[in-house]
Amino acid sequence: MKHRYLDNLPLPQAKARFFQHLRDCGFASKTETVSTVNACGRITAKAVYAAICAPHYNASAMDGVAVRAAATFGASEKTPVTLTPADYTVVDTGDPLPDGTDAVIMVEDLIDLPNGCCNILSAVRPWQNVRQVGEDICMGDMIAPCGTVLTPALCGALLAGGVTETEVLRRPTVGIIPTGDEIVAPTADPARGDIIEFNSTVFRGMLERWDAHVQVFPITKDNKTLLRAALEEALRQCDIVLISAGSSAGRDDYTADLIRALGTVLVHGIAIKPGKPAVLGEAQGKPVIGLPGYPVSAIVVMDEIVRETVDLYFGRAPKAPQTVDGVLAKQIVSSLKYTEYVRVSLGKIGEKVSVSPLPRGAGVISSFTKADGMLVVDQNCEGIAAGERVRVRLLCEPELIDKTLIVTGSHDPLIDEVRDLLQQTGAPFRVNSTHVGSMGAIYAIKSGLAHLGGIHLLDTETGVYNESYVKKHFPDGGAVIVRGVGRVQGLMVKKGNPCGIQSFADVARVRYVNRQRGAGTRILCDYLLSKNGISPNDVDGYENEEFTHTGVAALIAAGNADTGLGILSAAKIYDLDFIPVCTETYDFLVDVRYLEDPMVRAFFAALRSDACRARLEKMGGYLPEEETPC
Amino acid sequence: MKHRYLDNLPLPQAKARFFQHLRDCGFASKTETVSTVNACGRITAKAVYAAICAPHYNASAMDGVAVRAAATFGASEKTPVTLTPADYTVVDTGDPLPDGTDAVIMVEDLIDLPNGCCNILSAVRPWQNVRQVGEDICMGDMIAPCGTVLTPALCGALLAGGVTETEVLRRPTVGIIPTGDEIVAPTADPARGDIIEFNSTVFRGMLERWDAHVQVFPITKDNKTLLRAALEEALRQCDIVLISAGSSAGRDDYTADLIRALGTVLVHGIAIKPGKPAVLGEAQGKPVIGLPGYPVSAIVVMDEIVRETVDLYFGRAPKAPQTVDGVLAKQIVSSLKYTEYVRVSLGKIGEKVSVSPLPRGAGVISSFTKADGMLVVDQNCEGIAAGERVRVRLLCEPELIDKTLIVTGSHDPLIDEVRDLLQQTGAPFRVNSTHVGSMGAIYAIKSGLAHLGGIHLLDTETGVYNESYVKKHFPDGGAVIVRGVGRVQGLMVKKGNPCGIQSFADVARVRYVNRQRGAGTRILCDYLLSKNGISPNDVDGYENEEFTHTGVAALIAAGNADTGLGILSAAKIYDLDFIPVCTETYDFLVDVRYLEDPMVRAFFAALRSDACRARLEKMGGYLPEEETPC
Repeated sequence: MKHRYLDNLPLPQAKARFFQHLRDCGFASKTETVSTVNACGRITAKAVYAAICAPHYNASAMDGVAVRAAATFGASEKTPVTLTPADYTVVDTGDPLPDGTDAVIMVEDLIDLPNGCCNILSAVRPWQNVRQVGEDICMGDMIAPCGTVLTPALCGALLAGGVTETEVLRRPTVGIIPTGDEIVAPTADPARGDIIEFNSTVFRGMLERWDAHVQVFPITKDNKTLLRAALEEALRQCDIVLISAGSSAGRDDYTADLIRALGTVLVHGIAIKPGKPAVLGEAQGKPVIGLPGYPVSAIVVMDEIVRETVDLYFGRAPKAPQTVDGVLAKQIVSSLKYTEYVRVSLGKIGEKVSVSPLPRGAGVISSFTKADGMLVVDQNCEGIAAGERVRVRLLCEPELIDKTLIVTGSHDPLIDEVRDLLQQTGAPFRVNSTHVGSMGAIYAIKSGLAHLGGIHLLDTETGVYNESYVKKHFPDGGAVIVRGVGRVQGLMVKKGNPCGIQSFADVARVRYVNRQRGAGTRILCDYLLSKNGISPNDVDGYENEEFTHTGVAALIAAGNADTGLGILSAAKIYDLDFIPVCTETYDFLVDVRYLEDPMVRAFFAALRSDACRARLEKMGGYLPEEETPC
Repeated sequence: MKHRYLDNLPLPQAKARFFQHLRDCGFASKTETVSTVNACGRITAKAVYAAICAPHYNASAMDGVAVRAAATFGASEKTPVTLTPADYTVVDTGDPLPDGTDAVIMVEDLIDLPNGCCNILSAVRPWQNVRQVGEDICMGDMIAPCGTVLTPALCGALLAGGVTETEVLRRPTVGIIPTGDEIVAPTADPARGDIIEFNSTVFRGMLERWDAHVQVFPITKDNKTLLRAALEEALRQCDIVLISAGSSAGRDDYTADLIRALGTVLVHGIAIKPGKPAVLGEAQGKPVIGLPGYPVSAIVVMDEIVRETVDLYFGRAPKAPQTVDGVLAKQIVSSLKYTEYVRVSLGKIGEKVSVSPLPRGAGVISSFTKADGMLVVDQNCEGIAAGERVRVRLLCEPELIDKTLIVTGSHDPLIDEVRDLLQQTGAPFRVNSTHVGSMGAIYAIKSGLAHLGGIHLLDTETGVYNESYVKKHFPDGGAVIVRGVGRVQGLMVKKGNPCGIQSFADVARVRYVNRQRGAGTRILCDYLLSKNGISPNDVDGYENEEFTHTGVAALIAAGNADTGLGILSAAKIYDLDFIPVCTETYDFLVDVRYLEDPMVRAFFAALRSDACRARLEKMGGYLPEEETPC
């Protein structure tokens, strides 16, 4: 096994070295001439001047009659002037003024007389009610300097100025070469070991937002000859080439060598996390970038490097990211080895913006789907404490932050269903939900970081759910319980129950999968263990923690564990058998300040709607209201 | 001539009536299924759940060897554990874990021994260095609720979750029918009376930003049969139909009758300016909107009505416009009859955002090309005084406002040339220039509304330019003169000088075109008139005012006037003869606070560059520095 190592170049140095090299190579857009009708969104390559005036003739500005203004002089209420048919020509708005006329009288100001004559009671000035030549645009005037993004109105002005073709910057064609022996095209039915190739779809979406053309090449195996042929072909057709995966320094990581064979590797390894194993190179004067295979790493490199590469091609200044200041909801620990990029979700609660870090794994594309922003933690920072003010780069529309209902706490799929129902009915806000367990909900409400949170906390003394916890943690009030649903908790096992599990006591003799500390289901597990006299140490898999019911079900279905506690709806999705253990109450803890908030009210209205009840029934394992324990 | 009248329905009532009717008709998007690979930017029609887990198998999280964790228990520096080839399998990142293994040891932690054995110095936990099934996404989890705009990352997550096809909202097809006898396709050489059809290009650009498909139908003449056939065809093919022009109540305005013939007219005439003569109707359950022919009117109706019609189709909440607060630079008078839409340019100067109203004519598309924002003046407001705080709807990126050099004052095309040079060299700011005449520049600098302004003000006592004016208006300093250029002023006349003009005294016997009050050229004109003993009353066309040199040249070329004062470069563009009258100094008045501002410095550096000198030489009429009077 061969060992090679990556650089750990700080991002600013990596960028400087790469972009300076590209500049030295003369990397820049060519120009092309396009029909102005299709030029919207394009960037002018040079200043554009009006070819004709607009209007290009003297045009009537209204419906009326064109006259010689001098023929109307002296007209007044007392001394009307009579115009004979020879004195005027009927014109509509936009009609050219007949020769010899220099003004228009509005149709409303004419008093009809016999024989086509009319009286007027006031004079018109020369050029009154006339759009004179060049009123809007004069021939020779600069309509747009070079480097202007053509808006719809600018395209209109260019056409009005007789500019039917416009010289614009060519868009770069960015070639994407997905590589890897195990990579397969998107499918709903991948074989074991197949990795679905979705990165090129993500890259294409990003690149098209940055005004690039994208060409996705076929998936290429980890074979030096094939890879070289693919890169040569991409260099023939494209202005920028991205090689997806193989950018690290492992056994099958050929990207750096490949670029070196055809050009120059400028950087291999950047001090950012995720995103470290990136290759920045050049061949034939064109940038060739090796992107990490992990989607989150690749997205960070796309955003930090590829975006600016496209900007450099266009010769435009990189757009500074929009930012928002907020309060960190949960501490972040960071390494001094890297600049770290932490995805966060955002929501406004009271006057402050709550910033919640999302899972940080490089492989977790789902963390980006929930990300409203990116918190960049400096290399020389070891971490940020909860409650500190932070500045976040926005990934969402800023107005969205104000219109967010923050739901946190215990995981139940019903929250997503309510969220969908609210969207369906056009609710003017969105729901951001995170899974931090029932105790996490108590902490979040206490700290003013969420509007409401799902809890199902068993008081092992009384057998009553939730109430004693709220009394204990909110001795002076500030939060109330709003009744949620009753649901059945049970042990999920593979179809046919191969391990023959009968009751909770059996968990001691099989492989278990647990929930994370603070989860209501974890507390239930601990209670049941103690009730059955089982020590956690005797449970194989007690340390194997998942964050959701479906996470537990997925591992049992995959055979990573034999059983775990969870709700029926999760078992049903994975076609697992279910051994009921108890019924419990899943409630919502609500910050009293927001009890009457329209978003909170709408949430509970949706929860109690018939549509929601029908969904819960279909999912299974929820109790009719009258059977819900309290 | 037939007289018909329009309603004057306030905008909120017009919208309410129209949109309620459309809702009652069941106007809404259908859905369609698209490949997820091409779904970026689309809106989900219903909640999407993961079809498989991601990863869908237990995958190695790094390059190393897969083992049974139990086989490593007890390993330490003192008690290394030896793995034989039977104990491990080499795996790369992403490889599936072989059956019987449940952990991965990193390649760096292996100590090679002979015969393919290795030692390890520490144990691994079950599932360590493994991406377990569902680590990212669990089958059955909701990836996106309905109504979600699919970002690149969401498309990636859908594909990772095995969702290869996604049900999304169909985009509306919006048909545009350009109408009018005089309308012609874009051309650089229109005949007199031809009106270039550019509105459909503007509308298409706007609609595509709002996620609609656009179909532009052929230009249709003002003929009831042809128009009816065109509308019927558009209704067959489209979800929304826009009829461009003919929406008023004049002789050739058929839109309202046309809609009435095939459906219902809900509103004809809205109390907005520009934009009043709009028709809001419905036929076959589809919105049919008659847009005014004047581009600015049409853009306002597009923005206020058509945008929301598209939003209604998608079932999405209309996006609230971004706004910025600023100080009005010039008073606005407004009518109580309408809500008025005033285009404004924006720029930050010191701590305040300066809001400059642009020309307000409904036909002036160029006013939209310079518009950074829109000031909406309420119907019950008679006007707003200069210096008042106003809230402006943004039409540009907000960060642009901070990076704006505001140049105002006298018109000279060299300002546009400098602007283009700055763009060419990638200056990190833009130039906003407005033409308000030399006296306007003095007012603007005095009021802190511009960084610098062009002036050429003749002191008729001393013959010296600019200095005495600045002394008079800035007795306590605050502004300084920075040398600009010398240039020749003269009388422009048609080629061959058909009126035989020899000197300025001849203006008394021909048709003159003047510049606006406050312009340096106007002051020069008045001085020359008085010097020649000519009364303004004796000058035919003294009241005919233009704002730019090219504006004057255009009218002389069109025959609207015989002569006017201006600079040589304008005469050259229009192929006019030029009778020099005097040389003058065109300087820049600069607010001293901004003299060292990097934008101001860059402006003057560009002005004094060789590239600029070359351009001025080509334009003609500018003096070499040594010949410039002072």
